[in-house]
Amino acid sequence: MITKEIELRDWEEEYININPLQTGGRTYPDTRKAIVSYIDGYSICDWCKGALGITDRPPVREFLDDVSKFLGMDYTMLTNGCREAKFAVLHALTKPEDAIVVDSNRHYSTYVAAERAGVKVYDVPSNGYPEYRINPDNYAVVIGNVKKETGSLPKLVLLTHVDGNYGNLVDAEKVARICHEYGIPFLLNAAYSSGRMHINGKKIGADFIAASGHKSWAAGGGNIGLLSVAGQWKDKIITYSRKYEIKPLEIIGCSSRGSATIALMASFPYVKERVNHWNKEVENSRGLMKELECLGINQIGVKPTEHDLNFVESEVLFRISEIHKKKHFYLYYELKDRGIVGIKPGLTRNFKFSTYGKTEEQIKHLAWAFKDIVEKHGN
Amino acid sequence: MITKEIELRDWEEEYININPLQTGGRTYPDTRKAIVSYIDGYSICDWCKGALGITDRPPVREFLDDVSKFLGMDYTMLTNGCREAKFAVLHALTKPEDAIVVDSNRHYSTYVAAERAGVKVYDVPSNGYPEYRINPDNYAVVIGNVKKETGSLPKLVLLTHVDGNYGNLVDAEKVARICHEYGIPFLLNAAYSSGRMHINGKKIGADFIAASGHKSWAAGGGNIGLLSVAGQWKDKIITYSRKYEIKPLEIIGCSSRGSATIALMASFPYVKERVNHWNKEVENSRGLMKELECLGINQIGVKPTEHDLNFVESEVLFRISEIHKKKHFYLYYELKDRGIVGIKPGLTRNFKFSTYGKTEEQIKHLAWAFKDIVEKHGN
Repeated sequence: MITKEIELRDWEEEYININPLQTGGRTYPDTRKAIVSYIDGYSICDWCKGALGITDRPPVREFLDDVSKFLGMDYTMLTNGCREAKFAVLHALTKPEDAIVVDSNRHYSTYVAAERAGVKVYDVPSNGYPEYRINPDNYAVVIGNVKKETGSLPKLVLLTHVDGNYGNLVDAEKVARICHEYGIPFLLNAAYSSGRMHINGKKIGADFIAASGHKSWAAGGGNIGLLSVAGQWKDKIITYSRKYEIKPLEIIGCSSRGSATIALMASFPYVKERVNHWNKEVENSRGLMKELECLGINQIGVKPTEHDLNFVESEVLFRISEIHKKKHFYLYYELKDRGIVGIKPGLTRNFKFSTYGKTEEQIKHLAWAFKDIVEKHGN
Repeated sequence: MITKEIELRDWEEEYININPLQTGGRTYPDTRKAIVSYIDGYSICDWCKGALGITDRPPVREFLDDVSKFLGMDYTMLTNGCREAKFAVLHALTKPEDAIVVDSNRHYSTYVAAERAGVKVYDVPSNGYPEYRINPDNYAVVIGNVKKETGSLPKLVLLTHVDGNYGNLVDAEKVARICHEYGIPFLLNAAYSSGRMHINGKKIGADFIAASGHKSWAAGGGNIGLLSVAGQWKDKIITYSRKYEIKPLEIIGCSSRGSATIALMASFPYVKERVNHWNKEVENSRGLMKELECLGINQIGVKPTEHDLNFVESEVLFRISEIHKKKHFYLYYELKDRGIVGIKPGLTRNFKFSTYGKTEEQIKHLAWAFKDIVEKHGN
């Protein structure tokens, strides 16, 4: 009996959760209410009109129009997640053996989606340790190399707006400008940016935006993403079945046909509001980083940080693991004892975490907890 | 503010829901508890080991092994849904312009997935109105035609085990035997069979089984499906990224990374048990059909029905719509007044519904409701 073995989860209610995958996907009370109400299978299809994107009850169609406006784009489709949005663009625009250009800080799923599509990936390198900064100008260099090597321009350029390792924010407008000079479509992976900060696709010059509902739009534990498309690309990406003319091909008719769509919709008013407070999130994050650096827990990535997600390295914390009876797992347990979860168990020298949505009091508590651990256990 | 406009749902608590999409996906109380506990984003990744399918806490890996045994298959992957499982097989095995053979009762998503994969679909016709029976022997005929027309055998054969229109159950073993004679891989779409009735892929001779968590495994409103694979096909279907060696390509690393996986796991013990009572479900369905036929509401499809999902046609109910003040919507409202939902609003002459999971008392109530409507409103 598997059920009996499913431990119920207490990370959100009992702890301060700083897992970077999870802070931006936390649900609001209204969202939880909506999810529970739509908890059964295909519940969003009660008033189906033939396709999820045109459903009016609940108002999915209106919601998607609102999302397009919110992102400064023209058309939006629901996808099963951000990676599925990226794959949809790849699948629609490329053929196996085509070349695409992506930043080297990309999420693994960008690369795996590209492999699944059969395309060849050319990386735009970062400047490496310790900044891992992506210089937009290097996109022009790599595009030029692809042209030289293959005889053709790449079929797609992708930029990870904020990467999931260092939380580096790249100037997407500059990358877009380079793409447009070459006439190459530009996909912005906004998994860690849209839903947290203001994004305007038109202003940026993005042809496609892929977003993650469960990472950054408070859409909770259902798989959901968004693919927003600029008008001129609509007919290339949002193509329909020849036989079932309202069914978009790239989402096999309907994607998230259940409570995840409802969750995304229920959280949307909060998301629209919360992006106005992004500066405060960055301020919190910088404040904590400053405290941690005093302890010898040092931020890797572009400084000062421009995001709630940060990667740190720490000899101080690593050295404790050599003498602590819980070895490498000590940090996980010591933090848990102090009401904090979300750093990968076993890590001490290098790890990442996110302060998204935390109150000033919680930020102070986080700073205190690390200080207390270092003071109690550091030689 | 979209949230305010999301009507909360009352179909399950307040009504007898006979929507065929929804009866088999209804959650159990334990499932709901598990979903709520994992309601936040990426919650299943707390103890991530690098890929969803090998996670041991919660015990996803063990669960997938159990599912393989339950289905009489060798390997199982979580997918975002049944259609995504079908597309995964298509994408892994075929190239654009390849031919595949499917039954003409197939779900639209089978066709759309095939279009997305760029393959040419050859239909095995049913015997048409009123039975729409698929004769397994016709698979051999169509395979022969493909060979004649294209010079090659089809690359894949798909059978919809139970179709979603008429609830016809096809002898999958016979189709499998034909496929094996020709050496063509055989995909069984078990969206409306597995999770409801016993399925043994080995005994059937299925190379792949696609299943729907939210349609037939009580996995609720999160998108989730299963792709089970026979050993000899493992290396063709469950292929991994070259760079990220534990990330399966066809699910872009991880598929249902949230509460839907938990829901499927939490419901699994109940599903394993409930398939033992399939005969009772068929008996209930046949009992109701008998009562309805006395009223002039006639079952379309193979008779007597072998499934809880049935399609009916009824001149009696249609004629009422011509005199009822609610017109074609009368049936929806008259049923709702009698505590029943799930028949598509506006339909009277042809519609489908499902009695899955209903008690004998509810079956009697359904029979009474239709009788009462016909008696009160039929001339």
